[in-house]
Amino acid sequence: MPELRKDPIVDRWVIISPGRVNRPHEFKFKIDRSVRDVDPFAEGNESATPPEIAAYRNADSKPNEPGWRVRVIANRYPALVDADTDISNAHGPSEQHPAGLYEMLPGVGAHEVIVECPQSESNMSRLSIPNIREVLSIYRERLLCLGKDSQLAHALIFKNQGAMAGASLEHSHSQLIATPIVPSALRAELIAAEKLLKSRGQCAYEDVIQHELKAGSRIVLETANFVAFCPYASRFPFETWILPKRHSSHYEHILPQEIDDLGMVLKNVLAKLELAQGDPPFNYLIQTAPFSQDQLPHFRWRIEILPRLTGIAGFELGSGTYINPVPPEDAAETLRTTRIETTV
Amino acid sequence: MPELRKDPIVDRWVIISPGRVNRPHEFKFKIDRSVRDVDPFAEGNESATPPEIAAYRNADSKPNEPGWRVRVIANRYPALVDADTDISNAHGPSEQHPAGLYEMLPGVGAHEVIVECPQSESNMSRLSIPNIREVLSIYRERLLCLGKDSQLAHALIFKNQGAMAGASLEHSHSQLIATPIVPSALRAELIAAEKLLKSRGQCAYEDVIQHELKAGSRIVLETANFVAFCPYASRFPFETWILPKRHSSHYEHILPQEIDDLGMVLKNVLAKLELAQGDPPFNYLIQTAPFSQDQLPHFRWRIEILPRLTGIAGFELGSGTYINPVPPEDAAETLRTTRIETTV
Repeated sequence: MPELRKDPIVDRWVIISPGRVNRPHEFKFKIDRSVRDVDPFAEGNESATPPEIAAYRNADSKPNEPGWRVRVIANRYPALVDADTDISNAHGPSEQHPAGLYEMLPGVGAHEVIVECPQSESNMSRLSIPNIREVLSIYRERLLCLGKDSQLAHALIFKNQGAMAGASLEHSHSQLIATPIVPSALRAELIAAEKLLKSRGQCAYEDVIQHELKAGSRIVLETANFVAFCPYASRFPFETWILPKRHSSHYEHILPQEIDDLGMVLKNVLAKLELAQGDPPFNYLIQTAPFSQDQLPHFRWRIEILPRLTGIAGFELGSGTYINPVPPEDAAETLRTTRIETTV
Repeated sequence: MPELRKDPIVDRWVIISPGRVNRPHEFKFKIDRSVRDVDPFAEGNESATPPEIAAYRNADSKPNEPGWRVRVIANRYPALVDADTDISNAHGPSEQHPAGLYEMLPGVGAHEVIVECPQSESNMSRLSIPNIREVLSIYRERLLCLGKDSQLAHALIFKNQGAMAGASLEHSHSQLIATPIVPSALRAELIAAEKLLKSRGQCAYEDVIQHELKAGSRIVLETANFVAFCPYASRFPFETWILPKRHSSHYEHILPQEIDDLGMVLKNVLAKLELAQGDPPFNYLIQTAPFSQDQLPHFRWRIEILPRLTGIAGFELGSGTYINPVPPEDAAETLRTTRIETTV
């Protein structure tokens, strides 16, 4: 069974997940990317995947059969397992630890794959805006559903597009990992953001939006409900954040008109990025508040788009400091002025 | 000129370094690795590199000419620049920031390359033990020298071996980046370690060593002066830490007999890793205390070896939580039982 283990010195959890060693691309540096004959995520190949957890389907279609538009399935190589999983193959018991030095939790959680479209399409930016809206909508549904499980503290929704960004299958998809802990990075951010609200008298994310709109130099685009910009301390070239104008700490509280708007914003930003940088690998992820929290006045949900144009090497791993060769002002100007064909 | 910028919410600095965009492998995902005709780091090609900063040389040889055994040069594409650099090509001035929201420092520091051997050898594990000892010794010299510069707060020594680990040249080399700030990751660790000393009454690193030696299951090897083990909360498969048994917070305080021992330990661990996992890409880095600190009772220097057998994707970037498919107990057993030919 997977384990969550905490570093004895710093607040850093890891997931030790032996089952994933059988993934086809583990360890990927050794393995050639061979062309697959079959796209297991394509419509008609439903039997090649674990059973579906949720889907948006055409009226007369049945689960695990064709007729879906967006489909959520369990990850075949889950990092964490359901609470009711048979753990007879569990990794052996850990040795006795000195009290308080080593901390461990059973690796219970959820690891889901959101298949974003029925056709074999690798790039999310080429999906229609209504299609992307349904992806954003099913994210909301999954968070609402998983948030009811008292064993789960948080869920991170993320996307790996391109092999260099960690994708092991080309078909456009995103993932969700729900954990029994609040991830270390988010916990640190929540503490810092709460302090900032107290010291500055205003939500720091609102401060950032107001300043960015006034400065203008890092704005990629602005709509009625969202601001997309390259953050001041961008870790990656062309890193872009999408923040809602309406204060809300939880993605799952997103409103229907915000989903409509966000579908357009996300498609536009991704299309601009791909046109400007030649289809780069990228990750995106949704930072959102822990399930158990009510609306937080000091935190706001966001989407972070992280192009993987630079490597993560010894310096970044050792210092936590990223080296970014493209000033976010230059990146934003490039993205702002990259014209894409608007498609609906 | 490069800038250090701090995220407005969390304690995370980035280095915005426009000059590095001209690096040959920027952006590497687009560029084929072409075979280079010339190894600029090989003996005889000294004119192909920036001038040397330090070297161990044979008695009758001159700087920037053949006859060296280990050689330190400036990085041709430095992430940070010397304080006295001509900054006439500096990036334009930043806009006015709301007080306290955005923090910036000029990107002053040092970025050095330690060329580890005169011959064209890609793998540090194949260098002789005396050669590796000289590498470890010149690290110490560089830290002692840079520590005298009051503008510098810290230096991180690191190594990227293999393209997937961020190496842009194959010739065995390591790097040093000195910064005017203490890196966020180290600052967080120092605070946590100080708390642990107070709450547990003993240095947490000593606690870890004692427990690991007692448990045994994560030990890779032990010598008179060092313990090499796979840490309890390993982020990467086969992650291995080397900790000194003698308490010391600063690598530059290493003793001659410790360097002798460490040369053997490092060669052994790297050779075991390469034999067990088929020459994987890896990073290593030396965590050491800030220059301005005296001997710290709560912190101990260490070498972290981080094999890059798994990717860093959206989940890791968003949560700060790594997914490791190989339990450190299994990794340590594999490394422990991998027999290498002992060479001197």
